[in-house]
Amino acid sequence: MRATVIHGPTDIRVEQVPDPTVRQPTDAVVRVVLACICGSDLWAYRGVAKREVGQRIGHEFLGVVDQVGAEVTTVRPGDLVVAPFVWSDGVCDFCREGLQTSCPHGGFWGSGGSDGGQGEAVRVPFADGTLVGLPAEAAGDERLLTALLTLSDVMSTGHHAALAAGVRPGATVAVVGDGAVGLCGVLAAKRLGAERIIALGRHRARTDIARTFGATDVVADRGDAAVAAVRELTKGYGAHAVLEAVGTEESMRTAISVARDGGAVGYVGVPHGGSAGVDISQMFDRNIRLGGGVAPARAYIPELMADVLAGRIDPSPVLDRAVSLDEVPEGYRAMHERTALKVLIKP
Amino acid sequence: MRATVIHGPTDIRVEQVPDPTVRQPTDAVVRVVLACICGSDLWAYRGVAKREVGQRIGHEFLGVVDQVGAEVTTVRPGDLVVAPFVWSDGVCDFCREGLQTSCPHGGFWGSGGSDGGQGEAVRVPFADGTLVGLPAEAAGDERLLTALLTLSDVMSTGHHAALAAGVRPGATVAVVGDGAVGLCGVLAAKRLGAERIIALGRHRARTDIARTFGATDVVADRGDAAVAAVRELTKGYGAHAVLEAVGTEESMRTAISVARDGGAVGYVGVPHGGSAGVDISQMFDRNIRLGGGVAPARAYIPELMADVLAGRIDPSPVLDRAVSLDEVPEGYRAMHERTALKVLIKP
Repeated sequence: MRATVIHGPTDIRVEQVPDPTVRQPTDAVVRVVLACICGSDLWAYRGVAKREVGQRIGHEFLGVVDQVGAEVTTVRPGDLVVAPFVWSDGVCDFCREGLQTSCPHGGFWGSGGSDGGQGEAVRVPFADGTLVGLPAEAAGDERLLTALLTLSDVMSTGHHAALAAGVRPGATVAVVGDGAVGLCGVLAAKRLGAERIIALGRHRARTDIARTFGATDVVADRGDAAVAAVRELTKGYGAHAVLEAVGTEESMRTAISVARDGGAVGYVGVPHGGSAGVDISQMFDRNIRLGGGVAPARAYIPELMADVLAGRIDPSPVLDRAVSLDEVPEGYRAMHERTALKVLIKP
Repeated sequence: MRATVIHGPTDIRVEQVPDPTVRQPTDAVVRVVLACICGSDLWAYRGVAKREVGQRIGHEFLGVVDQVGAEVTTVRPGDLVVAPFVWSDGVCDFCREGLQTSCPHGGFWGSGGSDGGQGEAVRVPFADGTLVGLPAEAAGDERLLTALLTLSDVMSTGHHAALAAGVRPGATVAVVGDGAVGLCGVLAAKRLGAERIIALGRHRARTDIARTFGATDVVADRGDAAVAAVRELTKGYGAHAVLEAVGTEESMRTAISVARDGGAVGYVGVPHGGSAGVDISQMFDRNIRLGGGVAPARAYIPELMADVLAGRIDPSPVLDRAVSLDEVPEGYRAMHERTALKVLIKP
């Protein structure tokens, strides 16, 4: 089959690779119908996150089950399924608690020897623990499929940030970052009943999506000016809940600074700035909580899927460009150059 | 009157100072019956935390109301009262939410021009918002008064750490630090239903108190060895809830490292190590939450007081030495040299 392979910084290729097969009785093979490129893939593309030469890439996909191992019971060939961005065994203590990202048998698509999502098919370990079935009727509706694909990562991650930040009905929320995760964070905050949602971002096309997702205010400033703007909008108090969806030192510093005393920051941007942006003295004096991390998407997919299927949320606008598998390298370039927000792949 | 004054590092004196008087109609003057020395006072004693020459010191006291301003309605002369370690107006948004430490009219005893707790009397701003009445019968019972004095800071702070760490019935808890706050954290965790409490500390006299307060295990190691020991005690998982009661870089690093994936660290040690101990990548990968800060003791005193009065908790053993007001400088020396855990002052 053909799949996306990373050979080094900015060197993304679509190549012939071995067809995936069932190796363990708990495996399934899924033929990919839709995949996409993640902002976090760009860290590898830019050489900031290290990858082995020839490693697969892509961790968001949905598709149709092609083969299953003898012990797989919850999905069967022909089923439409979505995969969260990590696989997990579904039976360990952490999986049962809903923290599948800490499953001792879990792993990340594209890591050492595993298939990535940006290809024609994927061998899925622990298919029963990992995959979530989608209604067959969704197959004919590309907008709906696109919305369901976001459950794989960005919508689930935005929801994780909103939960970690303690978003409640009536809350004032600030969202730092206008990438796909930040925008999904806006949608998640709205879904959880936030009354006021301040989106921090400077890309008009993106903040326009934020507004359609429920943002009541947009702040285009950064750093101290952004902090002053959010305080101005909140009678000087700051936001009860802040979603940090970037992962840099500056964005973390901004997130903590715009939180109301006693409030919380939910951070889901993969940290690339060390802890220097975590101003612990400010957090201490003002009782700011910090939570979040890698989102257990598998735990969230069922409830978010119900809302997508019912039309209560539609995260599909975060995917604003579509490419074929051959065009994946161009998709990376477009996201790197910010001419695309998030790129859909149709293998 | 006589009160404790700090002139510089290790230079603590008891001096004649002006008698406190009612200056605002919301003030009260309280004659101090019991006060004490806090571990955080030692940061000033050691010159790590800056103080003006001649500044008052001490932020924990209980006593008898001597005078009240015309607008004070909840306490009157002769009442036995305890003060939290910050004063607060009692009517602002934050006070009503129970985060009195963020009251815009609040302040810390001993700060710029205010009285400190380690003296014969204290002018109390916003007496209605700040003071909590104690039953008159307690006056004759020194052990009970000593226990009630801990509500001023260390017991309330230990409780804050336990709440921030999300201690629940059945939880496994680790407490980093065997000072008075750490020990009160053990007691608070036990009170909230923790099943297993691992106290990290290396001073036998202190860890013995931890055991009487409910610690089921004691780990005397530090750093990586402490992390390994806690994991060994918890099937490799770590603790659901970790109370950080020291405030150094190393203690924060240890606290985060001994938390179970998906767990929380409640930190109440005044941060003196910057954020270098906050390992954000580890927190991200393992979904560790971090909360805490300066404890709103005023919010906690009523419920903790009820438990002290009913004999359900007795934090008094953390005060293991008593001095007169004249002997306060010796009390500081004893705590600095660790020959005393926490020193009670009887003015």
